[in-house]
Amino acid sequence: MNMKNNNLVIMAGGVGSRFWPMSTPECPKQFIDVLGCGRTFIQLTFDRFKGIVEPENVWVVTSAKYADIVKEQLPEVPVENILLEPCRRNTAPCIAYVSWRIKAKNPKANLVITPSDHIVMNTDEFKRVISSALSFTAETDAIVTLGMTPTRPETGYGYIQADLSTASLRNSSVFRVDSFREKPDLQTAQEYIKKKEYFWNSGIFVWSVKTIVNALRVYQPNLAEIFEGMLPVYGTDKEQETIDKRFPECENISIDYAVMEKAEEIFVMPADFGWSDLGTWGSLHTLAEKDDNDNAIIGNEVKLYETKNCIIHTSEERKVVVQGLDGYIVAEKDDTLLICKLSEEQRIKDFSAR
Amino acid sequence: MNMKNNNLVIMAGGVGSRFWPMSTPECPKQFIDVLGCGRTFIQLTFDRFKGIVEPENVWVVTSAKYADIVKEQLPEVPVENILLEPCRRNTAPCIAYVSWRIKAKNPKANLVITPSDHIVMNTDEFKRVISSALSFTAETDAIVTLGMTPTRPETGYGYIQADLSTASLRNSSVFRVDSFREKPDLQTAQEYIKKKEYFWNSGIFVWSVKTIVNALRVYQPNLAEIFEGMLPVYGTDKEQETIDKRFPECENISIDYAVMEKAEEIFVMPADFGWSDLGTWGSLHTLAEKDDNDNAIIGNEVKLYETKNCIIHTSEERKVVVQGLDGYIVAEKDDTLLICKLSEEQRIKDFSAR
Repeated sequence: MNMKNNNLVIMAGGVGSRFWPMSTPECPKQFIDVLGCGRTFIQLTFDRFKGIVEPENVWVVTSAKYADIVKEQLPEVPVENILLEPCRRNTAPCIAYVSWRIKAKNPKANLVITPSDHIVMNTDEFKRVISSALSFTAETDAIVTLGMTPTRPETGYGYIQADLSTASLRNSSVFRVDSFREKPDLQTAQEYIKKKEYFWNSGIFVWSVKTIVNALRVYQPNLAEIFEGMLPVYGTDKEQETIDKRFPECENISIDYAVMEKAEEIFVMPADFGWSDLGTWGSLHTLAEKDDNDNAIIGNEVKLYETKNCIIHTSEERKVVVQGLDGYIVAEKDDTLLICKLSEEQRIKDFSAR
Repeated sequence: MNMKNNNLVIMAGGVGSRFWPMSTPECPKQFIDVLGCGRTFIQLTFDRFKGIVEPENVWVVTSAKYADIVKEQLPEVPVENILLEPCRRNTAPCIAYVSWRIKAKNPKANLVITPSDHIVMNTDEFKRVISSALSFTAETDAIVTLGMTPTRPETGYGYIQADLSTASLRNSSVFRVDSFREKPDLQTAQEYIKKKEYFWNSGIFVWSVKTIVNALRVYQPNLAEIFEGMLPVYGTDKEQETIDKRFPECENISIDYAVMEKAEEIFVMPADFGWSDLGTWGSLHTLAEKDDNDNAIIGNEVKLYETKNCIIHTSEERKVVVQGLDGYIVAEKDDTLLICKLSEEQRIKDFSAR
């Protein structure tokens, strides 16, 4: 595998409304040090690919309003690799844009597409899996998605059903996809995890730029036409102006619907590297380090009395005293404070909208 | 009554630790707009005496470190009327200092002494009672304390037992004091309020400067000697330097122990003007305006869901969302947040000390 062809695409346009008030439209969770470890999610994502992708081959697609945050948090990424969407159109237009853009620069490029706000606990295993997938797509026209070995009957993720009888000859840990499944109810999720062929859909994709561009031409000709038509402006000072005009014309559609569920040559690579998309306060509580009373505390000056099963998330310098809470989120950022039962966290999106 | 002789003394040296974090050693509760009405407690105290005492006859005794806050909050008060204690020595030395200081300026002065952090709901009735008391002490050597008609068996206040058979000839609403009673237990408090002769000790005193100076000479000769000895420096640029040296020598003693419980000519004037010393979050909850779920909310951007019997105290611009709390204090100020059961509020002093 020629590392020079490896490219990383970080999708960083989300607004993270379920993590309000820590995550706000001005600074969503991918730009926040959610775990209190000193690096934001997008920085941790970038860090995971060190040794696999050169910094000049890292691309970030995000909303125009986050351009400055990305430049500040990822100074290693060339400014021209930060692609700015003028509006939100889900993952397919995002991936189409960056794919044509990369192809214009390097038609032999080999890509990993990843969200910017996931957690990976075992970075060594992550690197091994990603390298293996990139080797595979460097030599094939395969569309590869990473499938996470499920550890619980999670109803918050989509699932991928693999055909485990079809290991690829080139890579024995890559299998054909039988079907994609929407987020299941609990009973269905429990059935899934009893079987060996169901995996969590991580939203991490690996493919060559040639493969994804061809797939988009076949399954999304309207999208393909827009980005093909922009070939003369990629890398020029007309690019932003043109994308601002044409991007809003794109259909709002996920890459799963646009390509994955339609294409034939779809593969899944099972993996187990301590992954979480940490979409909710509850999952942060599950993952974070906890004290003896099962409190996850992010903040330096937090004192708890008769308090258990809580998440306290505040800034370093903020002094917080909590007495007598059980099972609550206490989260604050800038000028906003949220106190909410963990069991009611699905309502946070509504709270933040008011 | 000659209004020109009326003087007001506001004692404003307290640290208000039970109201942490709203009240801090840097800015205790008398300097805070606790009720969210646009005026701080000391400003409300000043306001209540308009029409009774001229601003140039208003005196504030406080800690040296609060000098700037007092100047800022009470610009009407002459700077030379702000007396600065170098250390805390309870109410007797405070009152002794200001009494000798006022006597040096006007030996005919007639004084009201008041704490700076009490609440009065009925200001008209307050003015009527104070004016009546001042008329009485202008013509007599009486030491008068205001006794509040109790509305509940409060165990947080001291009580005054009046001899209701001894109405003064000069003022039919002034009675001799039979005894002062410490904060009672609940059973005792219940017995007190069944009888008509028990009143809450408000800590508001009325007397002529001549009377209090004489009383201090008789009952606290050591204190009297210190402030008598300072006669040459009052109103000069040597005053602060001298007080800084001599004030620490004063015994730490309350005016109740120092004079009230020793003197003979002590009177109580019963009054009922919606008074509270608002010493605790619980009393704030009792007094403040409440929503339909018995929540007292101070703050402009507070949204509550399934929340009742709480106090939410925050700043105007702070956005707060609370879901699912019953009977809690949520209070924040500057860089500090407190969440605590109302029933545990006696521990707040400890929380703040850490």
